[in-house]
Amino acid sequence: MAGEDRVLAGGKTFIDFQTDPSRYRHWKLAVDGEIATLTMDVDENGGLFEGYQLKLNSYDLGVDIELADAVQRLRFEHPAVKVVVLRSAKPRVFCAGANIRMLAGATHAHKVNFCKFTNETRNGFEDSSENSGQRFITVVSGTAAGGGYELALATDHIILADDGASSVALPEVPLLAVLPGTGGLTRVVDKRKVRRDRADVFCTTEEGIKGKRALAWRLVDEIAPNSKVDARVAERAKEFAASSKRNGNGKGVQLTPLSRTIDDSSVRYGFVNVDIDRAARIATITISAPETGAPADIDGMIAQGASFWPLQVARELDDAILHLRINELEIALLVFKSHGERAHVLSHDDFLEANKAHWLVNEIRHYWKRVLKRIDVTSRTLVTLVEPGSCFAGTLAELVFAADRSYMLIGTIEGDNRPPPAIALSAMNFGPYPMSHGLTRLESRFQADPSDLDRVRDKLGEAIEAEDAEKLGLVTFALDDIDWNDEVRVFLEERASFSPDSLTGMEANLRFTGPETMESKIFARLTAWQNWIFQRPNAVGDDGALRRYGTGQKPRFDMTRV
Amino acid sequence: MAGEDRVLAGGKTFIDFQTDPSRYRHWKLAVDGEIATLTMDVDENGGLFEGYQLKLNSYDLGVDIELADAVQRLRFEHPAVKVVVLRSAKPRVFCAGANIRMLAGATHAHKVNFCKFTNETRNGFEDSSENSGQRFITVVSGTAAGGGYELALATDHIILADDGASSVALPEVPLLAVLPGTGGLTRVVDKRKVRRDRADVFCTTEEGIKGKRALAWRLVDEIAPNSKVDARVAERAKEFAASSKRNGNGKGVQLTPLSRTIDDSSVRYGFVNVDIDRAARIATITISAPETGAPADIDGMIAQGASFWPLQVARELDDAILHLRINELEIALLVFKSHGERAHVLSHDDFLEANKAHWLVNEIRHYWKRVLKRIDVTSRTLVTLVEPGSCFAGTLAELVFAADRSYMLIGTIEGDNRPPPAIALSAMNFGPYPMSHGLTRLESRFQADPSDLDRVRDKLGEAIEAEDAEKLGLVTFALDDIDWNDEVRVFLEERASFSPDSLTGMEANLRFTGPETMESKIFARLTAWQNWIFQRPNAVGDDGALRRYGTGQKPRFDMTRV
Repeated sequence: MAGEDRVLAGGKTFIDFQTDPSRYRHWKLAVDGEIATLTMDVDENGGLFEGYQLKLNSYDLGVDIELADAVQRLRFEHPAVKVVVLRSAKPRVFCAGANIRMLAGATHAHKVNFCKFTNETRNGFEDSSENSGQRFITVVSGTAAGGGYELALATDHIILADDGASSVALPEVPLLAVLPGTGGLTRVVDKRKVRRDRADVFCTTEEGIKGKRALAWRLVDEIAPNSKVDARVAERAKEFAASSKRNGNGKGVQLTPLSRTIDDSSVRYGFVNVDIDRAARIATITISAPETGAPADIDGMIAQGASFWPLQVARELDDAILHLRINELEIALLVFKSHGERAHVLSHDDFLEANKAHWLVNEIRHYWKRVLKRIDVTSRTLVTLVEPGSCFAGTLAELVFAADRSYMLIGTIEGDNRPPPAIALSAMNFGPYPMSHGLTRLESRFQADPSDLDRVRDKLGEAIEAEDAEKLGLVTFALDDIDWNDEVRVFLEERASFSPDSLTGMEANLRFTGPETMESKIFARLTAWQNWIFQRPNAVGDDGALRRYGTGQKPRFDMTRV
Repeated sequence: MAGEDRVLAGGKTFIDFQTDPSRYRHWKLAVDGEIATLTMDVDENGGLFEGYQLKLNSYDLGVDIELADAVQRLRFEHPAVKVVVLRSAKPRVFCAGANIRMLAGATHAHKVNFCKFTNETRNGFEDSSENSGQRFITVVSGTAAGGGYELALATDHIILADDGASSVALPEVPLLAVLPGTGGLTRVVDKRKVRRDRADVFCTTEEGIKGKRALAWRLVDEIAPNSKVDARVAERAKEFAASSKRNGNGKGVQLTPLSRTIDDSSVRYGFVNVDIDRAARIATITISAPETGAPADIDGMIAQGASFWPLQVARELDDAILHLRINELEIALLVFKSHGERAHVLSHDDFLEANKAHWLVNEIRHYWKRVLKRIDVTSRTLVTLVEPGSCFAGTLAELVFAADRSYMLIGTIEGDNRPPPAIALSAMNFGPYPMSHGLTRLESRFQADPSDLDRVRDKLGEAIEAEDAEKLGLVTFALDDIDWNDEVRVFLEERASFSPDSLTGMEANLRFTGPETMESKIFARLTAWQNWIFQRPNAVGDDGALRRYGTGQKPRFDMTRV
């Protein structure tokens, strides 16, 4: 029922999240002063898997990987860009959404991970707009259907051609028996604040809504006759650029290719290594501290470029997580370790804090925030082991707090002359890296008694050893070397034996305490319902709507309402 | 995979939500002044369906129907009761949670509806505590496992016997490959604010947690040696009674049996009628206005007792919704209609507002709130038709705003000499009936521009005809009699043809705009994930954990992590 396993196109053996504009097959990125234009022009024959064609600017994960790359590069490589215009190179269609044949043939795991990544990419638009001052305008000339409209929904301003044909639509429910699950339902009512009964009409109207009604119902921000669309785009872009808070200057930082070696049991980057133990179903992710403290000044950071430690580690960790998520589906646990000089990590955190007004430092801080958020929504058990030689300080200490559980060694290990491990906190633990629901990981952790948060704030910069860390509530368990090996091993083995589905559900609930935001609602309410539907025969069964789409046969539904 | 259809025990033909203490098989309700004791003593052989025994105080829907009835009667029939003590009559077990054999054999639809009702019942404890001043104390002597601990979690205070054996546990994940889905995960971290990594440990520890650790981890509120448990309960009960805001006096209102006739195509009550059209998959729920205005004073209301119109309609509507949810699974649409004197409805609303400080009026208002919340989380398309002769005013107008769509007739229908329909608003539309996420239906509706809310508030008490109602945003569509029949018919037919699953997901997302509360998180994040898991072979497949539980065979899991 979950669909056959697809074969990757072009003889590829894994899905690679690394790309660059010279390799794009589906997008064109053009920069002109303050305005960048991202033109969607999907190559029908450029699908990530064999077995489908990407007609009408429909997309698969490969198309979205390029989009995510472009948005990322705009933030880092183009400090002058203040407005990003999203448009289509195809006549009569902006974007037809996720490719249905791809979805129909995808495994459940691929569908879920595909949606997660596309959600993260769209959240990234909003993050860029809010925090980097790169505002997004979508030009819909032709149809923006399903994921196509959801792409537009993630931008700041939607201009719809008022030509009697151009429309926006979320036809998933009537056409495919699934949800507009890439934020669509949530953004319609929560971001655009479309009245819920109108949203009901819109989301059940296969052909979508055009012109004046689309505007009156708040589905788009403005409409313009075809002859005036380009002038209107230029006008809005100018206006948005003028009000942007982006203060980048000089050259951007080139996001040079990552140094990465992948073999059967490991992925090695510069500062991040992933060791995969398939029998134990564990991937161990080890992060190394920098060799030295932070550069003396901004110029020093600029000179380091993409090899500036916080930036390089963020990129490597981001790639590692994405790789494991989509290419290593049977790995149950991600175990985080670190090693190196705590002081060097803290020195970089101090740099990030002291220079936070600088555009590039701002970008790096927000990038770390996004990488950590990606970890939060990763459906694997997250474990952090704080051992001798480790450097879980500041930014890296977030991996202790992001973990479902953390274990910290009390004292030393016999025969190991390294000092007892210690955690240290920096300003980075108290604000810059909120989770998707708006709280920092420490705020989330100390919901019961906010004075616990004050107590740990008092230790800022200090080396906190295991027993103190446990008392302060910073780690789950502090263990001495007599218990360490057995306890950790038993936990890892037991965890790997549980049903992966129940762990996914449990972790998704326990990780997000307290408030919800539009972003967290997308990963909670919307995504969980969509995943449910992605299991239901009415959508994915042999007679279901996804499978029967385009075959000429109508789907057959079990009409039991659940 | 979803399990066979069970046969109802005792030759019953439908599940009945009506009961009373004289018929309880599983609970004993004893009232002693300000303190009521609800003792769980499940009759093993009293299962709702054939094929399982309710061992160890495990429960099925039938047990929960009695519990919901008892809690409801405590609010209405026992104004003097300020504290409810929940305990078990069984040795060594408080409650083992939902019966696993029942779950293993239940259809997906039954599992989902069972969980929804049990969630509503537990939310009802919290509502009673907060709004009626009836505070709940749970005494755990023995094991409180899974749904058993979730029952305790919904109360205000948990006393755990510190006897080396009594424990609290959420063993669903390790034992059954499902979630503690009756609020368990959410209440552990959001209500009790257990640190998320400790919650992770707790929810994966099959045998649960006892004594001091349970207390230190905030899983219970106090522990007491066996010999002191009763004294401690008495002490706490006295304390809670002293601080309760409950101000009931005199006799309660007997919740006399509903007058109800069920046949194959209808359910008829006093003021509520349900007409079932199985071919069209529509249930039409028609509510009649009272014959007269409200009684002159509180004594008049008391004299009417359970036949006081707002109370009687709330009870009838509640029963009708529950009946349709669980017994009529193929009905796609609930169509709300009303008829009678608008002025009589408004007169009762005025009474409810003028006398809101009276304990019984307070109960009725909160009951209406709960009935309307039940409608909000009902997985059927909700449609309200505002036609000539209708009386959608105040409280009943909430059914217009709760609907996924509403249609209102402009003017009159040829050959029908009744005046054009009108909607009217009362104080009841502006506060007393918040949805589970904390907003009123009108606040939820007018998220885009709060001044829309002020605009409708200015019309309080006025008769608002269709074109004005449409302009004010109170109805989805106003149609004249030329379009009415066709438009409504086409909509109903089209809606009934869609995949019920995609509608469930869509409606669950669009109905709850804006903020989330613990309660709405339970119906969103937690429930949606649980429903997903209830579809996964690892839980419900032939080799899954639910099916294999108790067979001696270990479940076999697909280890793909999704």
